[in-house]
Amino acid sequence: MAPNRMRALAALLMFTGITAFTSTPAGGPMLGFTEEGAAAQRALEAQYDARLHADNLRRWMKRMSAKPHHVGAPYGKENAAFMLGLFREWGYDAEIVEYQVLFPTPKERVVELVAPTTYRAKLTEPELDEDATSKVHENRLPGYNAYSADGDLTAELVYVNYGIPEDYEALERMGVDVAGKIVIARYGRSWRGIKPKVAAEHGAVGCILYSDPREDGYFRGDVYPKGPYRMKYGVQRGSVADMPLFPGDPLTPGVGATAEARRLPREEAPTLMKIPVLPISYGDAQPLLEALGGPVAPPDFRGALPLTYHIGPGPAKVHLKLAFDWKLTPAYDVIARMPGTEEPDQWIVRGNHHDAWVFGAADPLSGMVALLEEARVVGELAKTGWRPRRTIVYAAWDAEEPGLLGSTEWAEDHAAELRQKAVAYINSDGNGRGFLGVGGSHTLEPFVNEIARAVVDPQTGVTVEERLRARLRTNGDEEADTRADLRIAPLGSGSDYTPFLQHLGIASLNIGYGGENGGGSYHSIFDSFDYYTRFGDPGFAYGVALAKTAGRATLRLANAEALPFTFSGFTDNVGRYVDEVEKLADDLREQTRRRNRLLEAQAYVLAADPKKPYVPPTAEPPVPHLNFAPLRNALDRLEASSRSFEHLRAAAPFLPAPRRRALDDVLMHIERVMTRDEGLPRRPWFKHHIYAPGFYTGYGVKTLPGVREAIEQRDWTEAEQQIHIAAATLDRIAAEIDRAVALMREAGTGD
Amino acid sequence: MAPNRMRALAALLMFTGITAFTSTPAGGPMLGFTEEGAAAQRALEAQYDARLHADNLRRWMKRMSAKPHHVGAPYGKENAAFMLGLFREWGYDAEIVEYQVLFPTPKERVVELVAPTTYRAKLTEPELDEDATSKVHENRLPGYNAYSADGDLTAELVYVNYGIPEDYEALERMGVDVAGKIVIARYGRSWRGIKPKVAAEHGAVGCILYSDPREDGYFRGDVYPKGPYRMKYGVQRGSVADMPLFPGDPLTPGVGATAEARRLPREEAPTLMKIPVLPISYGDAQPLLEALGGPVAPPDFRGALPLTYHIGPGPAKVHLKLAFDWKLTPAYDVIARMPGTEEPDQWIVRGNHHDAWVFGAADPLSGMVALLEEARVVGELAKTGWRPRRTIVYAAWDAEEPGLLGSTEWAEDHAAELRQKAVAYINSDGNGRGFLGVGGSHTLEPFVNEIARAVVDPQTGVTVEERLRARLRTNGDEEADTRADLRIAPLGSGSDYTPFLQHLGIASLNIGYGGENGGGSYHSIFDSFDYYTRFGDPGFAYGVALAKTAGRATLRLANAEALPFTFSGFTDNVGRYVDEVEKLADDLREQTRRRNRLLEAQAYVLAADPKKPYVPPTAEPPVPHLNFAPLRNALDRLEASSRSFEHLRAAAPFLPAPRRRALDDVLMHIERVMTRDEGLPRRPWFKHHIYAPGFYTGYGVKTLPGVREAIEQRDWTEAEQQIHIAAATLDRIAAEIDRAVALMREAGTGD
Repeated sequence: MAPNRMRALAALLMFTGITAFTSTPAGGPMLGFTEEGAAAQRALEAQYDARLHADNLRRWMKRMSAKPHHVGAPYGKENAAFMLGLFREWGYDAEIVEYQVLFPTPKERVVELVAPTTYRAKLTEPELDEDATSKVHENRLPGYNAYSADGDLTAELVYVNYGIPEDYEALERMGVDVAGKIVIARYGRSWRGIKPKVAAEHGAVGCILYSDPREDGYFRGDVYPKGPYRMKYGVQRGSVADMPLFPGDPLTPGVGATAEARRLPREEAPTLMKIPVLPISYGDAQPLLEALGGPVAPPDFRGALPLTYHIGPGPAKVHLKLAFDWKLTPAYDVIARMPGTEEPDQWIVRGNHHDAWVFGAADPLSGMVALLEEARVVGELAKTGWRPRRTIVYAAWDAEEPGLLGSTEWAEDHAAELRQKAVAYINSDGNGRGFLGVGGSHTLEPFVNEIARAVVDPQTGVTVEERLRARLRTNGDEEADTRADLRIAPLGSGSDYTPFLQHLGIASLNIGYGGENGGGSYHSIFDSFDYYTRFGDPGFAYGVALAKTAGRATLRLANAEALPFTFSGFTDNVGRYVDEVEKLADDLREQTRRRNRLLEAQAYVLAADPKKPYVPPTAEPPVPHLNFAPLRNALDRLEASSRSFEHLRAAAPFLPAPRRRALDDVLMHIERVMTRDEGLPRRPWFKHHIYAPGFYTGYGVKTLPGVREAIEQRDWTEAEQQIHIAAATLDRIAAEIDRAVALMREAGTGD
Repeated sequence: MAPNRMRALAALLMFTGITAFTSTPAGGPMLGFTEEGAAAQRALEAQYDARLHADNLRRWMKRMSAKPHHVGAPYGKENAAFMLGLFREWGYDAEIVEYQVLFPTPKERVVELVAPTTYRAKLTEPELDEDATSKVHENRLPGYNAYSADGDLTAELVYVNYGIPEDYEALERMGVDVAGKIVIARYGRSWRGIKPKVAAEHGAVGCILYSDPREDGYFRGDVYPKGPYRMKYGVQRGSVADMPLFPGDPLTPGVGATAEARRLPREEAPTLMKIPVLPISYGDAQPLLEALGGPVAPPDFRGALPLTYHIGPGPAKVHLKLAFDWKLTPAYDVIARMPGTEEPDQWIVRGNHHDAWVFGAADPLSGMVALLEEARVVGELAKTGWRPRRTIVYAAWDAEEPGLLGSTEWAEDHAAELRQKAVAYINSDGNGRGFLGVGGSHTLEPFVNEIARAVVDPQTGVTVEERLRARLRTNGDEEADTRADLRIAPLGSGSDYTPFLQHLGIASLNIGYGGENGGGSYHSIFDSFDYYTRFGDPGFAYGVALAKTAGRATLRLANAEALPFTFSGFTDNVGRYVDEVEKLADDLREQTRRRNRLLEAQAYVLAADPKKPYVPPTAEPPVPHLNFAPLRNALDRLEASSRSFEHLRAAAPFLPAPRRRALDDVLMHIERVMTRDEGLPRRPWFKHHIYAPGFYTGYGVKTLPGVREAIEQRDWTEAEQQIHIAAATLDRIAAEIDRAVALMREAGTGD
């Protein structure tokens, strides 16, 4: 599910303080390690690096991407068994954990234009001589959106741009209503599942998604097989479950989908899409869009097809027929453990999914094979005598593509144990040539930066941190000129960290490389070994870089003498989020005020072309001033606590051994207090109050989500409530940091 | 030459002070008139309005657009004779003034792709049943660029985006050199003549211009004849003379191109283009662009054709062959005078051109027929006994399209008389449905605003000022919420005001309506009566609105008891320009500093994709701090003078009759002191030091051009010199205002 997300993360990454690091990794202090500990760790990492082999990545990718391996595919099970064998061979305590999940697959798919002209959509991706697996048809899933409703309907078509809420506002201005219509939306600007959800909210009866060449085709660059971009008949598959409500098996929210789990009846499962939805290629979309009449689409609705984009409704009329096989399917998670010598009950969980939409060379195998190589070498090192202080758990998740099912069910199934034992979850997914991208818990920001300054970029020879900083700086990010640390991006959703971070409150990281690896194969049959080895990461150098990066994260967390969580970067980032939500309310107030003034002056109607339909917006009640003081006060307390912590840590970084465990225990659970049992309004599964995927963005993160989304939805009562809740959350974090401070103080006074 | 320019002006228009005017024209004070004078003027304007008939506009447009009427075409001469007859019939002292101008027309035009595939460009626009004159072939000029060089060459092709200087910087970053190549550039972002000029400066040997559907075709809306936008084979003709050097006949700079004028030998004429250049349609451009290899074009280079834009050079190789008939051609200006009763030597000149590239219904006839109707009614009013206090001169210019030849030669020919007698020049050109657009001398800003508050918009019933204000406000211009007056846009070039304003220093206005009139017929054969009456201004209501607006400007200037020039709006605008040039230097300093720092850190090279050619920019010397104090001090003096003037004018607006003439004489010459005999650096013909067309923008205005362009070109010595010159110019303006103030003071003390 990852490549687009990966690029977005890389783009979001930003830096923190002083500049000019050496371009080659160096010694010096290492977070969580004494001087001797750091030296030993560096020696271990040198051995680790030396044992990584790109050839393994290539070999495993070629093998695992040879046939379709979606959840339920025979080859998916075969891949799981293959990995189980590898883990065991490498010395891990490995098992396959099976869940039974709802996974519909298509029985019938029809999209046809029935008026004013006719066209029957091909709905197939062509065979290409340059792409060997494009000729493998057995067990292949065609283009479809998992968890679409069944349906057979004929209705007028309306083009809704990206199909996000602001597009429907633009349609209202043009007097266009989608009730009873089939909408066609282009991919982009939001996670796909939002599009049919918002369409259904507006009364649409069906939804067609397509990849416009503007975002995903010839506009971007040469198309496959000449170049890496999406070709005329390439289709983006993907889930449309309402994941912002909860991810995972739609029938077993909150609990593991074991064979005996209690299941919702399908008709009551709230994340299933209410209307039929199907993704098509731009080759198939063009005749439909050409047949639309009605107003000319506004400039930001226009894509790169050679036509004048119109809105409709009609005269284009479309017949959409979809039928699915709504079966339960076994999902196979592969879980491999290496117990810690000193802290077996402190777990570092490191995962990547193994299921794909079709062949999935990039998504997920490019990350999966890096994880395998990491595990192989860690296993090898363990055979040389070294053992981790803490337990390492490697996971290969099944069924990520339909909605993070393998990881979510396992996390739900082991919730109590994970809440108690997990130190951190480290995720990867698709990977490719380019720049480091890291998202995650801000308490790990300095930790990640140290690692980024210890890994060398395969193409330029400088550290991956320096290369990324160069890109940020040349892209105009002036903070990157001076801030010492990378800002790591807050996490929304889109890969398997979500159940760990947002449901269980486990500090998480999502790590990958990308940005120079094309990007037109996403969720199509052309995400293949042939594509990947031409455009993704031909020499697997960035696969090795990922193994070095994620491997360091795993090994340092596993070996640290004191857990490397810190709070000044966290507090700095949260302070920005507080500024943002306050500004959001202020901006909304000013916009509302001005819009109401313009409405009073009839300015919108006067400015509109009288020859075109135009409906002015309606006046909104004024935006009240909200009381942000509780949040500001809590932030001040958090800053004070975090300053005390950093101060003591700088003065005496390591407690005497007996207290270390107590301090670690406090630190590893601090992310837990960022969650609340009742979760977020209207979606109790999402418990984290600092990071959540947006209710109307899907993958896109909303920080301080309770406060931010209440303001965005203009619910002032809820906004005031959520400000108090967010303040209480910050206070709980501060209190936990104060506990850590107390432990350190006691130690300092020789207690 | 006007439609695009008109829209640009409308977009630039902005407002000045208090809001909420009544939406219907009202009485009250009128600039330059006593209370009784204003009442009489309003009564006259009511009569004037009542006599305007849309049918005349339609009839004249249909007649005058029936055949091609470019300069030198038999029908152009016929149109001139027709108008001469009308003016005389209406009681004017009218004449045709003839000049002999260089006007090359094509003898041979070939564009063909010769490798790696072959394609011969059609270079013709099709006949359409929906467009009657598309079937008129006799005397029609095909698609070409006037003043292109002759040539016959075959070379590799390079795509240079808009072909402006910043595009060549982007090409340098990709390691692409155009020396010895033929470049292909899309229209847009700059006046067309800049593109081959910049190409030649970079060593290109030929240039092809084309209309990309992104700016000018199906991306914008439905194409002709279904909609108003440019169809696949529509071609934009136009001049490529180096007009920023000087407009008018290339062989007679600075003097009228009379039969006996001394002419430069053609090979010494500096405004002739040095390389062959030809405009083509996007239908013809597509095969050429498809044949390009080399790097993928960066995002802002990409248009709306269904292909991946590449840069080249090659493998596309193009044969370009152009031969022209370099003949002298007679140009026929029609000049009609109505002498003033009291001030016959104070002239209000009101002009529009009559020549077209082909049929020219919109450009120029939509403006021309409004001027004719204005003149007809003014003639009628004169027959009822009213006569203007000042002389009105109506002008129908020939040969505007190849480079403002008719107006420029007449202005040069009558320079001394015009400098002495002209109060103002009022221009129009293409006109259409939509919003008022006014550009011009800021000393006329309040005058224009009064008129805009006196003319009712035909579609909405509010004043054209209120409608435009509504658009500005809804487009986010917050100044328009409160500023009492429209900011009128400063004038660059693009129509016949240039010789009056920028060469002679005559206060000028350019007036037109547009923005809802499509825009894909510009300079093609489809700028026809059929097009215009479907998409331009079907009922000629905006033609009548133009006649009301420009007619009021003419009549009020002609009748005013005191000339309505004011200086606070002027000073406010100039203050903004001073802020802008200072900020320009500051921004350039900061950008240079940062870029040099990033170069030192190798950030550009590290951020670039190592698999693609990349050449980092070179370091620039630091930008010094310039001494803007002289300009700031001059601005302060100007503000003081202008405050005194407004103060006295408010206290006692009208001098006793004997002093009025002296005051008028000062006021009408104040624009003259904004010019300097030596003109601007490297282009002495352009004498105005507040407004000029940009040396590298062509039509686009540069305010405080001497200072601004020196900074843009990083010539710090010249920038310091030009700051002193601009300060001296402001001082001269202040001194003239002080003379006016002294006259008013003397009158006030009863002298």
